[in-house]
Amino acid sequence: MKIGVDYYPEHWDEALWEQDADLMKRSGVELVRMAEFAWSVMEPQEGEYDFSWLDKALALFQEREIQVILCTPTNCPPLWLYEKYPEALQVGRDGKRMKPAVRGHRCYNSPVYRRYTEKIVRKMGEHYRNATNVAAWQIDNEVDSPYCCCEVCAGKFREWLKEKYGSLEAVNKAYHNEVWSGSYSGWQQIYPPLGGWPITQYNPAYMLDYQRFMSESTVEYVQFQLRLLREYFPRIPITTNTYFSGSMTDFYDLFEELDFCSYDNYPTTVLPEEGYYSHAFHLDLIRGVKRKKFWIMEQLSGATGCWMKMGPTVRPGMLKGYALQAFAHGAEAVLHFRFRTAVGGAEMFWHGLIDHSNVPGRRYAEFEDLCRTVQGLSYIDKTRINAKVALLCGFDSEYAFKLQLQTEGIYYFEQMQAFHNAFSHYGVNVDIISQEEELEGYRIVVAPTMYVRSQKAVEQLHRFAREGGIVLLTARSGVKDENNNCIMQPLPRDYRDMTGCWVEEYDAIGNRKIMVEMDGENYQGTHWCDILHLESAEALGVYGEDFYAGKPAATRNAYGKGTVYYIGTVGLPALCRKLAEQTLQLAELPYYKDIPERVEITVREGEEGCFIFVFNNDDAEKDFLFEGGRIKLKPFEMKVVGGKQNE
Amino acid sequence: MKIGVDYYPEHWDEALWEQDADLMKRSGVELVRMAEFAWSVMEPQEGEYDFSWLDKALALFQEREIQVILCTPTNCPPLWLYEKYPEALQVGRDGKRMKPAVRGHRCYNSPVYRRYTEKIVRKMGEHYRNATNVAAWQIDNEVDSPYCCCEVCAGKFREWLKEKYGSLEAVNKAYHNEVWSGSYSGWQQIYPPLGGWPITQYNPAYMLDYQRFMSESTVEYVQFQLRLLREYFPRIPITTNTYFSGSMTDFYDLFEELDFCSYDNYPTTVLPEEGYYSHAFHLDLIRGVKRKKFWIMEQLSGATGCWMKMGPTVRPGMLKGYALQAFAHGAEAVLHFRFRTAVGGAEMFWHGLIDHSNVPGRRYAEFEDLCRTVQGLSYIDKTRINAKVALLCGFDSEYAFKLQLQTEGIYYFEQMQAFHNAFSHYGVNVDIISQEEELEGYRIVVAPTMYVRSQKAVEQLHRFAREGGIVLLTARSGVKDENNNCIMQPLPRDYRDMTGCWVEEYDAIGNRKIMVEMDGENYQGTHWCDILHLESAEALGVYGEDFYAGKPAATRNAYGKGTVYYIGTVGLPALCRKLAEQTLQLAELPYYKDIPERVEITVREGEEGCFIFVFNNDDAEKDFLFEGGRIKLKPFEMKVVGGKQNE
Amino acid sequence: MKIGVDYYPEHWDEALWEQDADLMKRSGVELVRMAEFAWSVMEPQEGEYDFSWLDKALALFQEREIQVILCTPTNCPPLWLYEKYPEALQVGRDGKRMKPAVRGHRCYNSPVYRRYTEKIVRKMGEHYRNATNVAAWQIDNEVDSPYCCCEVCAGKFREWLKEKYGSLEAVNKAYHNEVWSGSYSGWQQIYPPLGGWPITQYNPAYMLDYQRFMSESTVEYVQFQLRLLREYFPRIPITTNTYFSGSMTDFYDLFEELDFCSYDNYPTTVLPEEGYYSHAFHLDLIRGVKRKKFWIMEQLSGATGCWMKMGPTVRPGMLKGYALQAFAHGAEAVLHFRFRTAVGGAEMFWHGLIDHSNVPGRRYAEFEDLCRTVQGLSYIDKTRINAKVALLCGFDSEYAFKLQLQTEGIYYFEQMQAFHNAFSHYGVNVDIISQEEELEGYRIVVAPTMYVRSQKAVEQLHRFAREGGIVLLTARSGVKDENNNCIMQPLPRDYRDMTGCWVEEYDAIGNRKIMVEMDGENYQGTHWCDILHLESAEALGVYGEDFYAGKPAATRNAYGKGTVYYIGTVGLPALCRKLAEQTLQLAELPYYKDIPERVEITVREGEEGCFIFVFNNDDAEKDFLFEGGRIKLKPFEMKVVGGKQNE
Repeated sequence: MKIGVDYYPEHWDEALWEQDADLMKRSGVELVRMAEFAWSVMEPQEGEYDFSWLDKALALFQEREIQVILCTPTNCPPLWLYEKYPEALQVGRDGKRMKPAVRGHRCYNSPVYRRYTEKIVRKMGEHYRNATNVAAWQIDNEVDSPYCCCEVCAGKFREWLKEKYGSLEAVNKAYHNEVWSGSYSGWQQIYPPLGGWPITQYNPAYMLDYQRFMSESTVEYVQFQLRLLREYFPRIPITTNTYFSGSMTDFYDLFEELDFCSYDNYPTTVLPEEGYYSHAFHLDLIRGVKRKKFWIMEQLSGATGCWMKMGPTVRPGMLKGYALQAFAHGAEAVLHFRFRTAVGGAEMFWHGLIDHSNVPGRRYAEFEDLCRTVQGLSYIDKTRINAKVALLCGFDSEYAFKLQLQTEGIYYFEQMQAFHNAFSHYGVNVDIISQEEELEGYRIVVAPTMYVRSQKAVEQLHRFAREGGIVLLTARSGVKDENNNCIMQPLPRDYRDMTGCWVEEYDAIGNRKIMVEMDGENYQGTHWCDILHLESAEALGVYGEDFYAGKPAATRNAYGKGTVYYIGTVGLPALCRKLAEQTLQLAELPYYKDIPERVEITVREGEEGCFIFVFNNDDAEKDFLFEGGRIKLKPFEMKVVGGKQNE
Repeated sequence: MKIGVDYYPEHWDEALWEQDADLMKRSGVELVRMAEFAWSVMEPQEGEYDFSWLDKALALFQEREIQVILCTPTNCPPLWLYEKYPEALQVGRDGKRMKPAVRGHRCYNSPVYRRYTEKIVRKMGEHYRNATNVAAWQIDNEVDSPYCCCEVCAGKFREWLKEKYGSLEAVNKAYHNEVWSGSYSGWQQIYPPLGGWPITQYNPAYMLDYQRFMSESTVEYVQFQLRLLREYFPRIPITTNTYFSGSMTDFYDLFEELDFCSYDNYPTTVLPEEGYYSHAFHLDLIRGVKRKKFWIMEQLSGATGCWMKMGPTVRPGMLKGYALQAFAHGAEAVLHFRFRTAVGGAEMFWHGLIDHSNVPGRRYAEFEDLCRTVQGLSYIDKTRINAKVALLCGFDSEYAFKLQLQTEGIYYFEQMQAFHNAFSHYGVNVDIISQEEELEGYRIVVAPTMYVRSQKAVEQLHRFAREGGIVLLTARSGVKDENNNCIMQPLPRDYRDMTGCWVEEYDAIGNRKIMVEMDGENYQGTHWCDILHLESAEALGVYGEDFYAGKPAATRNAYGKGTVYYIGTVGLPALCRKLAEQTLQLAELPYYKDIPERVEITVREGEEGCFIFVFNNDDAEKDFLFEGGRIKLKPFEMKVVGGKQNE
Repeated sequence: MKIGVDYYPEHWDEALWEQDADLMKRSGVELVRMAEFAWSVMEPQEGEYDFSWLDKALALFQEREIQVILCTPTNCPPLWLYEKYPEALQVGRDGKRMKPAVRGHRCYNSPVYRRYTEKIVRKMGEHYRNATNVAAWQIDNEVDSPYCCCEVCAGKFREWLKEKYGSLEAVNKAYHNEVWSGSYSGWQQIYPPLGGWPITQYNPAYMLDYQRFMSESTVEYVQFQLRLLREYFPRIPITTNTYFSGSMTDFYDLFEELDFCSYDNYPTTVLPEEGYYSHAFHLDLIRGVKRKKFWIMEQLSGATGCWMKMGPTVRPGMLKGYALQAFAHGAEAVLHFRFRTAVGGAEMFWHGLIDHSNVPGRRYAEFEDLCRTVQGLSYIDKTRINAKVALLCGFDSEYAFKLQLQTEGIYYFEQMQAFHNAFSHYGVNVDIISQEEELEGYRIVVAPTMYVRSQKAVEQLHRFAREGGIVLLTARSGVKDENNNCIMQPLPRDYRDMTGCWVEEYDAIGNRKIMVEMDGENYQGTHWCDILHLESAEALGVYGEDFYAGKPAATRNAYGKGTVYYIGTVGLPALCRKLAEQTLQLAELPYYKDIPERVEITVREGEEGCFIFVFNNDDAEKDFLFEGGRIKLKPFEMKVVGGKQNE
């Protein structure tokens, strides 16, 4: 467990560096990330390199035994590069090349950008080959996969399609191009989704392929850098930092060859008045990407703002609490973004630990408190999260859901989060893993909205259930084949045998709520209603209204040695909790019944015993009985129960 | 009365065709529409034609004595055409040529597109010249009139203006181009409305002409195809299918030379909680286009969705009820879109009668029930709707209203619908006809918002009133001359003599409501308040508030042998009903006083008697006394009272 | 005090001109503005000039002893100019050249446009050099400063930067271009803000400079015309008319060399249900631009509309009342826009005094009443407003606030208006002046949100306070240096010594409200909370909630002989009034305690005594005791109390 900060020596007068490093050292900082946007400082003119400033910074940290993370600066090339090679910039869906001036916007597929990427990465590699306090390398910064529509991407996409399908005929068939006279009679008729229409108007099979291609292009670009860095740093771990963007790269692909996963973690500073929100969902998802510990490369440190309006500051306890929450859920290192708020540039109101004034204040004091606490928790490094509940995730379904709006208010990730919340409510660890991961060791697998077919996922889920596992499936499963086309069999198609029921009809009810009767109680669902026809399944709950009142809304079916639940609507929290508790009871897994709302439990086990992290994800105090004692938690406080040591 | 379906053999494995045709036959399908998007299947490479698949489908239907509607596939050319001739694509207001990839977007004026249109239409003509089971031809699909801004359209528009005005001076005068230095000093300065400004910022006279030009271009393109088809099929009726789009072609022009009118009918599946909505308004409007029976080429069959979010499914009774409602209002054939939901392409969530699963379900059963019912109603074909109330419609006013936003919430068609609803409430047949139609035979003519002058309409309305008719005029009448300019005389200008009053001043109150006192009761208007100055008219109602409280809001005037009503505000339903009832009483027309809300009456008369269609346009049951008996209606049920036969 | 109208002879049949002029004369019109859009009428073909129509109009008015304002018509050149020189059109942020067809859109920096501007201005100059009834010249019409991104502007911007900074290194330093690799390595890398991103994503230092450059370009263009006109009309006052646009030119720069300020005044016709809105804020701001009397070149005369939806008509009393309000606040002339509503062109629903009908109605009668009233008030011309309270305004802060969204709901001008409203509530005159104006003579200076540093303003405020003045500062003061970068010192930085406190931390609370306790009462603030640390200051009020409950929210500090107030939140009206009253009491300035809501007092003083204008800015009557008597005001009525004469 290490605490770090993001620091930009190039933003500050050199006179400040030493006192900054001293303060970090004094506070307990062990890691400093640098240089992810500093290309123009390292190579102000083409071929003129200047690493002296970074050398100096490294030396300062080395003297203080602080390790650094170095980044390749390829998110933003210097302007001379874009000036000389405008083709290194992405082209938008309007067919227009982006303009430099804001960050990012490099085309991952641009050959010239690859060439210059190689040059700067090799330069850094050569220069820092022998540096001894580099803890890790970060490739680029917050890569994602927007739709570049340049000619190079168009050409590469055609090659990608040739590779995948072999012939135009096969493409036409896979895309059902007979619809609306869309058949390609020449490869050159294939383009990125240029034009002013919403992407939901395009052929969804084509769009999913284009989305996959863009995601793979991003992955390929990262792997290109990875191979270069490995040449120089065969023993230093290499990563890239991801986040939840509007144009996500497939996390499972992105991190496959990287050494560990890292994530930029900005939980909200505005707590919802109703309902429940836990950023732990993202943390568990990130932990599941490589099923191992991850790093937080950027952690919330103050009010965010800049191109969006400034938001409220972090409330007392949040800064420390959210960092500990990350550790509890599997972070190995948490770096706060950023040490001090920038005084220039477009990000100057994205607040760091220290304000513009350079007077450390309330938040910095809390950060120092965090550092002390973390030092006392180092034993936890030897523990791990053992989860018996897995939640399946797949990017094809996320992409496809966005490409065709299923109904007002329904989102792929929100359905996953609903069940994550439900199991968290009972203090149960949850792994969020790829649909294609092995399921061995789990007792319950929740598989919401298995929308686009993954043959591997289908097979593994069947095997898991057959061998005694408990599976919970939801509406909009089995809808699409691998090409994002519908299938001419009753829903939930690939899962019909498991669920023992099929969907007679469905009703896309948008944000309307619908009553579901279950065990004599009334619950609520929303967005979607599958009207279920029972085969071998039994009805667990029935709709309480509309023309399908009395028809099954949720079912349970014995399948092999296991049990398969299906819910045909999107449950509101009480309904999801009901189902979570039912499966937990069936699985005979331990769970907590009376944890207060917004209190989160994470159990970590190791040789030295079991440590229970109890986190108050709320701005009100909590006071309750827990594990035979009484526990009091201030807003956002975390306490560790059990094990060798207690905070 | 015939029932049909839209069917796309090219979307399905040939193995399915026969069983599909068998099922249609069994269910009672008499018509099948095909091929409106199948150009790329008919001509996969330029000059390589393949009609074999369509021949096969035709043969299958012929064997089963099912007639077909064949369509020209010109909505979407094959991609090789756009690749070779990008100029066949429209250019948007941003000056950029559209991209293929989504449907439509052909430029109606493109010479090259005309040439290829001719080729494919002649090929189809030659090939199907001797087909014996073609019931009708449909030209293109859902043509409308968006603003194409290509050079060809610009050039044709200039020619159109030369033809209309003779000289630039005349154009400048007609457009008042002296405003804002807008005078043209050369024809080449005239362009389509390119540029990023909202169309409401352009000169409204110019814009109305451009809008008319685009509408006429669409009409001309359809007539071009019509002439070609007539060469091959002199005896087969030819139509095109229209719908209410955001860029409407003038329906009266569009269908003038076509044999009958057809319409794509998608009533809502979400009933408004308050107020009243009847799709019958659209049906009456379509019937009035050619004042004869029409076809429904696409009829609601399931949930709609795709580029928009998926909506709720059709409730039980809707599928049948909405089809019968169409028949009652003058449909001769109703084709359901579509037989089976597509499994590929961008429209795969626009649901047909049968779901993706290919298992006929609730909706298909209701469709079969509809087929049976329709067979029992065939005697109705010999009846017709005799309406004594006409509602006038004019596309110039619709266009001009959109080109200059009169006030928040006011729409041209909504005002027509308000009076349609009001008369429908009393079970009275209403014809909706062009402002320029003959008015003979009517007793009451409602003329809402006669905004842009049609000299013919002005004269006919005067004659109608003079000869004893009852006319109901509303605010925003007489505002514009033929060029969409204002006129230097008091409103309602051309109608001032008829109404016996003039508008001292008006107040555009947006969505605010205003009280109107009439016969001792309080009613409400909204959007607009004309403050009326009485000449020969008497006040029927006065405003109950604001600085014009006590001033006339509605008037009645004797004109010739007739009576002219004027209402200076946009009435909420109670006020429109009040006026409707007053005019019905004055006209001594029979009407029903106590029909429950959302029950619709259509009276059809023929040699064999009078048939009263009673339709429950609601999802609640109705039970009421009617014509001396008691009538019970399930949700969306239609019953026929009187005549030879009862369902 | 003169009343005028805007009149467009070129819009009307010549037959109307004489009767129009007669009516104006009869009504009391003394001024007529003409020709600001008439270039294409004056020069229909290049080099063919026709001023005969304007000569005729001038003669008509001269005969009637009505003076005219002539305008240069450069807002809209004739289409032949744009046809020949498309480069005279602006280029938008999307890199596309604007299209003509709507008004404006000339590039102020275009050399060819400057050349043609010079030609037409010289032609008008030569032609009207000897005209004797020209009261003033207006340059162009409603100039503003949108972001033109053409190559000429790009080039001029680079020159502007060279001039300002000397070297690229200095630019990079001033912009902190080390952030995100934004350093320029060549001047040609500097562009206007092209690209699709919101301007809030760009470097704020760069953006503020570009904004200043665009404002200066506008000013330079106006001054270019000014120099030309001065050659011909050395003794006629020259102005341009401004308004509050979305892309404002710096008013202080714009009018610096012009003879007087003029403004287009369109108060709302929809009064807010809650809160208080007075257009007097704008009038005081305009008066303060040159600290002297100004003209209203366009005054609200009827319902507005056209490209936006039509709004409600002016309520009875508004037309007269708003004109008198303008006079009370310093207008020397008020010209109503427009004499008669246009019957053609895009602005035909922007209503004038007379409606399309050409029948003078209620509003024209009120206008005539206004003319009579104004004649009776001419003695007031010799009075002036003596304000002891000044409100400081700076365009850099307005620009910078828009370039970086501080928090939901916070706007620069709204904060100024809040304090204007507060002092107006007490019937106190307020000057709104540039931050850089001399402060001599004032007792209270309110300086809201001194966001971007002006060294001159900082020094003057310090001097003013030191010498005994009362200063009221607010949150977000001292935030930025001259380059729009943050500063590494505690807020409010430049003002910390004056305020005697500093900002420990701030919380951007958006539209949330927060309680502030002061003198035992509860008040409310919103948007922003500075948590203040007292040095020499005393706490006036403390926050009543959140984690900073009890911390100072407002302070008072003795500084030199003066007193400095600081408020860390954006006060709702009651809080602003509380502070206004405190400062008034401390300053021992007279004020009214019990004026009803929405009644406005303006005190004008002259040799003949003191005249108190009492204006009822409300649609309800007022009846109250005032200055020892009882005063009754109809909606929007103004009465003058004291002095020689009473209306």
